[in-house]
Amino acid sequence: MNNLTVVKIGGNVIDNPDALLRFLTAFAGLPGSRLLVHGGGKIATQVAEKLGVQTTMVEGRRITDQPMLDVVTMVYGGLVNKQIVAKLQTLDCNAIGLTGADARIVLAHKRPVGAIDYGFVGDLDEVNAGQIQFFLRQSLTPVIAPISYDNQGGLLNTNADTMASAIAVDLARHDTVTLVYCFEKRGVLADPANDDSVIPALNPTSYADYKAAGAINKGMIPKLDNAFRALDNGVARVVICHADELGAAVTGGGAGTTLNK
Amino acid sequence: MNNLTVVKIGGNVIDNPDALLRFLTAFAGLPGSRLLVHGGGKIATQVAEKLGVQTTMVEGRRITDQPMLDVVTMVYGGLVNKQIVAKLQTLDCNAIGLTGADARIVLAHKRPVGAIDYGFVGDLDEVNAGQIQFFLRQSLTPVIAPISYDNQGGLLNTNADTMASAIAVDLARHDTVTLVYCFEKRGVLADPANDDSVIPALNPTSYADYKAAGAINKGMIPKLDNAFRALDNGVARVVICHADELGAAVTGGGAGTTLNK
Repeated sequence: MNNLTVVKIGGNVIDNPDALLRFLTAFAGLPGSRLLVHGGGKIATQVAEKLGVQTTMVEGRRITDQPMLDVVTMVYGGLVNKQIVAKLQTLDCNAIGLTGADARIVLAHKRPVGAIDYGFVGDLDEVNAGQIQFFLRQSLTPVIAPISYDNQGGLLNTNADTMASAIAVDLARHDTVTLVYCFEKRGVLADPANDDSVIPALNPTSYADYKAAGAINKGMIPKLDNAFRALDNGVARVVICHADELGAAVTGGGAGTTLNK
Repeated sequence: MNNLTVVKIGGNVIDNPDALLRFLTAFAGLPGSRLLVHGGGKIATQVAEKLGVQTTMVEGRRITDQPMLDVVTMVYGGLVNKQIVAKLQTLDCNAIGLTGADARIVLAHKRPVGAIDYGFVGDLDEVNAGQIQFFLRQSLTPVIAPISYDNQGGLLNTNADTMASAIAVDLARHDTVTLVYCFEKRGVLADPANDDSVIPALNPTSYADYKAAGAINKGMIPKLDNAFRALDNGVARVVICHADELGAAVTGGGAGTTLNK
């Protein structure tokens, strides 16, 4: 069993070059093997607007038609991914940028059309853990864009939180995996209006209580559902923290919110 | 010594989905290890136009300012690269899309400013042949976008012909390498106006004669200079052919123009 840290970094940090550099410096300095899954940030929406591609959101989710899939492939798979890789190289972290199609590392199917047709959005089927481990054993650090592969020639826009969780779970079969969600808050907040109200630890019971009280709501719920699912499926530790507190969160300095079974 | 085929595919083929699929089918069917270096095609110029990024050409070469570098990174490193990777996967070719920054496979420096300031354009320094061989030994097929890495956090727009030649030369230290330039003509033409005037074989003497007569001119000259340099530096065979004749060219069916020392 090797130690592996799977880190997800969100769009707000990617949109801020100084914050991104601080985060990448901490990421490069983590002990042991590590892997990064990144979101997209606002730049995809900006590029889409300039290209005349309309962004349709339904219930907070982007509908991905073919022109938007091309934008996402350009911006997440190209610009954001390669800028992160290039920066990590300067920090002595030998990064390799990948989508799910590259070496077939993340396979998915197009989400079935129900009440909403999300378009070219992927629901995950399979992570090629052996291939990812092969990169890790060669001291390469995978930097994975939130784009999966449908095994039939198609790329699919994929939620980065879900992708990080699925990768962490599959790698946990062989390694001791810590999964860290980094975002712009200092952790899960007991009071969304108070940035200092970080909940140090959550378990399924206290999570249910906070949800019932309305303290944990909106976008935090799918993030936490993903996170608890990872814990239930073999991931050793899950932490949700500010991008600036990655180092402390991983080395046990008490930053962020730690999830317990 | 393993056999390796390094193939460069140009932009005109990439711009034509049917031609690209025919080419990729032939590429996936090549015997032995293979590696693809792709150009960009017109789509970078189209995307740049829509984004309001001006394309400046000097002597047939694109000047790459920062906004244009971002476009190139998006389009070549993201859209074109990942579409090729996804398509190759359907053809049972386990492709992995890379730029020079990924795993530091192609290092370069920014071209010094002389009479012309080319901007963020890379002149190649070093190919990490060991890393590329490591992918090849794992039956992964590298698909390399024409973007190199300056070792200081910067990406650089790079001529795909030069990149293919440099990669072929460095891998030829260990493997028996065939380098194939695929484009929209059936080979090097004795008469540029006659597509059937393919020169079956060229050596430095006959090349000099054709140049002196003006039959070989313009964009063919840097391509052929790259190609002869590769032959002089250990590459076993260099062929220039139509994208539709890749299979015949590699297996010795007599397609295209073969260069000899």
